[in-house]
Amino acid sequence: MKTSAIRILGLDPGLRRTGWGILDSDGVRLSYVASGVITSPSGDDLAYRLRALFEGINGIIASFSPREAAVEETFVNENPRSTLKLGQARGAALLAPAMRGLQVAEYTPNQIKKTVVGAGHAQKQQIQAMIGFLLPKAKFDSADEADALAIAICHANHRFTPQAAALRLMKEART
Amino acid sequence: MKTSAIRILGLDPGLRRTGWGILDSDGVRLSYVASGVITSPSGDDLAYRLRALFEGINGIIASFSPREAAVEETFVNENPRSTLKLGQARGAALLAPAMRGLQVAEYTPNQIKKTVVGAGHAQKQQIQAMIGFLLPKAKFDSADEADALAIAICHANHRFTPQAAALRLMKEART
Repeated sequence: MKTSAIRILGLDPGLRRTGWGILDSDGVRLSYVASGVITSPSGDDLAYRLRALFEGINGIIASFSPREAAVEETFVNENPRSTLKLGQARGAALLAPAMRGLQVAEYTPNQIKKTVVGAGHAQKQQIQAMIGFLLPKAKFDSADEADALAIAICHANHRFTPQAAALRLMKEART
Repeated sequence: MKTSAIRILGLDPGLRRTGWGILDSDGVRLSYVASGVITSPSGDDLAYRLRALFEGINGIIASFSPREAAVEETFVNENPRSTLKLGQARGAALLAPAMRGLQVAEYTPNQIKKTVVGAGHAQKQQIQAMIGFLLPKAKFDSADEADALAIAICHANHRFTPQAAALRLMKEART
């Protein structure tokens, strides 16, 4: 990784499966670092499933030392029970990078699709094809992993805009 | 605390305010230990609000060394956004005791009301009056604190039933 590049962790949280993807970006070029899926044992108590997720993400941060994280801001409208479940997984996923002092950005699914493919209502296949084009070395077996990489790509594009740079400077000046 | 007594942490999670209450129970008598409310700075990024919540609960566990935790299993049916928000706060609240190896039980609002007052549809005032009766030394300024104590009382009642004791033995035998 060049010194001017930034390493980004993308997370697609879910209680059963949490996708993660790491890439480096220098503002122009992206390069694939690693990706995978963290699963939580479905027989365990909820609190311990969240712990498995949290510790999994923690391990990835320790191994790859990303400097910033980005998480998908999803809503499940099916029923409150699944929204609550997703919220709990998101809680653990947001907490892990925050506990290590990383900046944690959030993007809606539409923002992610629009950034990666150029259209807010892109299909899964279009997104995966675009990831293959933007990150030719990327290897991913599952949609969760691809989604996590898409989130990281989205953050890479947003963080290098002049507005994003100005916001970061303002934030740093405040702290 | 007598050696036969168990110290219980009750948590009523919320992103803005998380109520907590600690009591000792020997299976017959309950005694109030402490209670309070953790707030998260509303101007902060979500991940850092969850971190404030997690660290607050962590500090309470470090100070009072509860052996078991209990958390309310709530649903907000208003809208998916608030359910997701609550889920994220619950995620942080469940994670904190799990990271310290505590058993974390969950109870529905109806179970809690039924255990504390005897009726599943008890009013807030009835619950607070009952807490005053069961824990005469309890001092609480807010409904969140009272709710957290009610959750701890509920767990104290459930953990000493013969069924609960049998389940615990089975779980311990498995691990």
